[in-house]
Amino acid sequence: MQYRFADRMARVPESFLEELFSVSAVPGVISFAGGLPSSATIDVAGIADAARAVLEEEGRIALQYTTTDGYLPLREYIAERYRRRLGLPAKAEEIQIVNGSQQCLDLVAKIFLSPGDSVGMERPGYLGAIEAFSFYEPVVHAVPLEDDGPDLEAFAALVRQHRPKFFYGIPNSQNPSGRTYSQEKRRAVAGILDGTDTVFYEDDAFGDLFFDGKPHLPVKRYLPEQTIISGSFSKIVAPGMRIGWLHAPEPILKAFNIAKQAADLHSNFLCQKILYRYLATHDLDAHIRVVAERYGRNARLMCDLLDDLFPASMSHTTPEGGMFLMAFLPDGVSSMEVFREGVRQGVAVLPAVPFCVGGGGEDAIRLNFSTADEEQITEGMHRLARVIRGLL
Amino acid sequence: MQYRFADRMARVPESFLEELFSVSAVPGVISFAGGLPSSATIDVAGIADAARAVLEEEGRIALQYTTTDGYLPLREYIAERYRRRLGLPAKAEEIQIVNGSQQCLDLVAKIFLSPGDSVGMERPGYLGAIEAFSFYEPVVHAVPLEDDGPDLEAFAALVRQHRPKFFYGIPNSQNPSGRTYSQEKRRAVAGILDGTDTVFYEDDAFGDLFFDGKPHLPVKRYLPEQTIISGSFSKIVAPGMRIGWLHAPEPILKAFNIAKQAADLHSNFLCQKILYRYLATHDLDAHIRVVAERYGRNARLMCDLLDDLFPASMSHTTPEGGMFLMAFLPDGVSSMEVFREGVRQGVAVLPAVPFCVGGGGEDAIRLNFSTADEEQITEGMHRLARVIRGLL
Repeated sequence: MQYRFADRMARVPESFLEELFSVSAVPGVISFAGGLPSSATIDVAGIADAARAVLEEEGRIALQYTTTDGYLPLREYIAERYRRRLGLPAKAEEIQIVNGSQQCLDLVAKIFLSPGDSVGMERPGYLGAIEAFSFYEPVVHAVPLEDDGPDLEAFAALVRQHRPKFFYGIPNSQNPSGRTYSQEKRRAVAGILDGTDTVFYEDDAFGDLFFDGKPHLPVKRYLPEQTIISGSFSKIVAPGMRIGWLHAPEPILKAFNIAKQAADLHSNFLCQKILYRYLATHDLDAHIRVVAERYGRNARLMCDLLDDLFPASMSHTTPEGGMFLMAFLPDGVSSMEVFREGVRQGVAVLPAVPFCVGGGGEDAIRLNFSTADEEQITEGMHRLARVIRGLL
Repeated sequence: MQYRFADRMARVPESFLEELFSVSAVPGVISFAGGLPSSATIDVAGIADAARAVLEEEGRIALQYTTTDGYLPLREYIAERYRRRLGLPAKAEEIQIVNGSQQCLDLVAKIFLSPGDSVGMERPGYLGAIEAFSFYEPVVHAVPLEDDGPDLEAFAALVRQHRPKFFYGIPNSQNPSGRTYSQEKRRAVAGILDGTDTVFYEDDAFGDLFFDGKPHLPVKRYLPEQTIISGSFSKIVAPGMRIGWLHAPEPILKAFNIAKQAADLHSNFLCQKILYRYLATHDLDAHIRVVAERYGRNARLMCDLLDDLFPASMSHTTPEGGMFLMAFLPDGVSSMEVFREGVRQGVAVLPAVPFCVGGGGEDAIRLNFSTADEEQITEGMHRLARVIRGLL
């Protein structure tokens, strides 16, 4: 029979992530294409202890339904951390728990975007956001992302001319580029938005993972009532529990909560309890330092190999944190070719193409440095150098 | 500042569920208003054993990201159960794991409904569905639900005149009415839909919970390519893990999977692993028999008390399974009054009003019999009888 799907389904880009997942699973392929945190750094024993305690002491509660907003002690923990680390005057009531911060992308778009509304984002920008927003049929305007943040002239013009409902950005160690906004550009972005009715949607999945351990002040500090900020435990504790959050002004959080309730009632309560128990009995900051130092070593190794093994006509970003960097290909070599030929030669990378709203990305690839270990990075980068030299 | 929310937010009904949750939490109030399975029947020790084994033996995998479709052995378990219990030729590849079956409501609406599209449902119908669908701005047409299923004339007229994208129904122990479609009406519903392009969305949250343990054949048996069916472990194992599923023909499942990925990447992997381990090492059917027998005793007690203590002008449905029944009030007593006065006198019920698209429900209340124990049911029904007699 002929199924009559909604009009929006014709707008949704073909998912690249599924192709990726299958590629990453090919035996022998070293993958820099995914976005998984290092399995080696997940504190399985610590989480197992927390799970045992929760199920022994309060299992009957943790396994029952709960409220949509999320487990209050966990929200208080998140709020306290914002106050302490970033100087944000956050309260637990301003935090909503979600199924990983991907769910924020869906539900923020759901509460803000009518078909045809304008929304802004970076180019290159996060693929998961492009996919989530596309279901709500907005007009997406992309602002070039420079080494120190968005092109301010283009950003100001976008806000003035198109009055987007919100601008979505990742100021810390952006996915896919690995770039971080400078403090000057954060202030400038806030200044341009101040007095307009465009919301800044600050995706902060990587702000904990600066290699030097020093936090950067978020845009929300400069524009508190106009900024929503999302966070995630996926990269700093474990992704398999699917726990992230949104921190937003009260009227936005209220609309968001109604959308969340209709979407799935509430997030997994058992894992909220386990996660909180884990956080209350472990030093998260010490754990994060170990993870960030490992990622820093991997990133430096990858950058060194890019400098040493690859054609001199190539360049790359030099991330201060996070899990990704971007490499720019020699003239005449396309990122889609590198992707396809790479898989054949045992190394998977991600072309920047699907990250670029409005075209572009043929000249760049995204490289993940959190999943592989140092030996795999060394071998994989040698393979990748051969692939690119072969395509020249 | 003035936030510019999407047009759809003006269409979303004020949530009744939050008011409910706060009411249910008032100390001393006996609540028949919620929809929680009995906490007493949750096998906390069994789930704790499963959690321990998963975290010891495969914690590093269970805590990592996974694919959108869900854990394959769990999907195979669900498919096998469909084959064995209901004679559905289900395959694991036709099962998608979701965060409780509420997520199916959101995502099915998302892939099928453009603004202004027609959708059909029962009156009274499930509140969570009304809320989830409303975000996609359809025109919702309601068909009266009779004791043995939908009014067939109205159902046929709806399908013919409005050609809804799908009709949403709960054939087994419906929420809120407690009614079950007869086999004749299931066949008739399938017959009316056959040859049209209206999909039947069969929400089967309660099909396991017939008090006599005997399954009823789903509409999907009569109309396999045109029916999607959702299920949930919330009522038969534990709601706090948020694991449900959709079983659908391949083209629908493919669209659904794209929507699921954009919505939250995948469902909680740790709990999928724990749940599967639990199911593989425990007799689910034996567990369900215990739960269903308890609910059957509670339902019979509640029905007897309705017959004995309440005005003779009242009537009620007599459920064969599930967690709810519906009581019809005497002339001149409104369900909203009973709700408000009930809370004051220590018993919470749910007026049928928010369940009725297109009006109605002033004459009926929904009573939950799964949460309270026999003593609480007896005391609560005495209170409720006093409330209603006082309003006469």
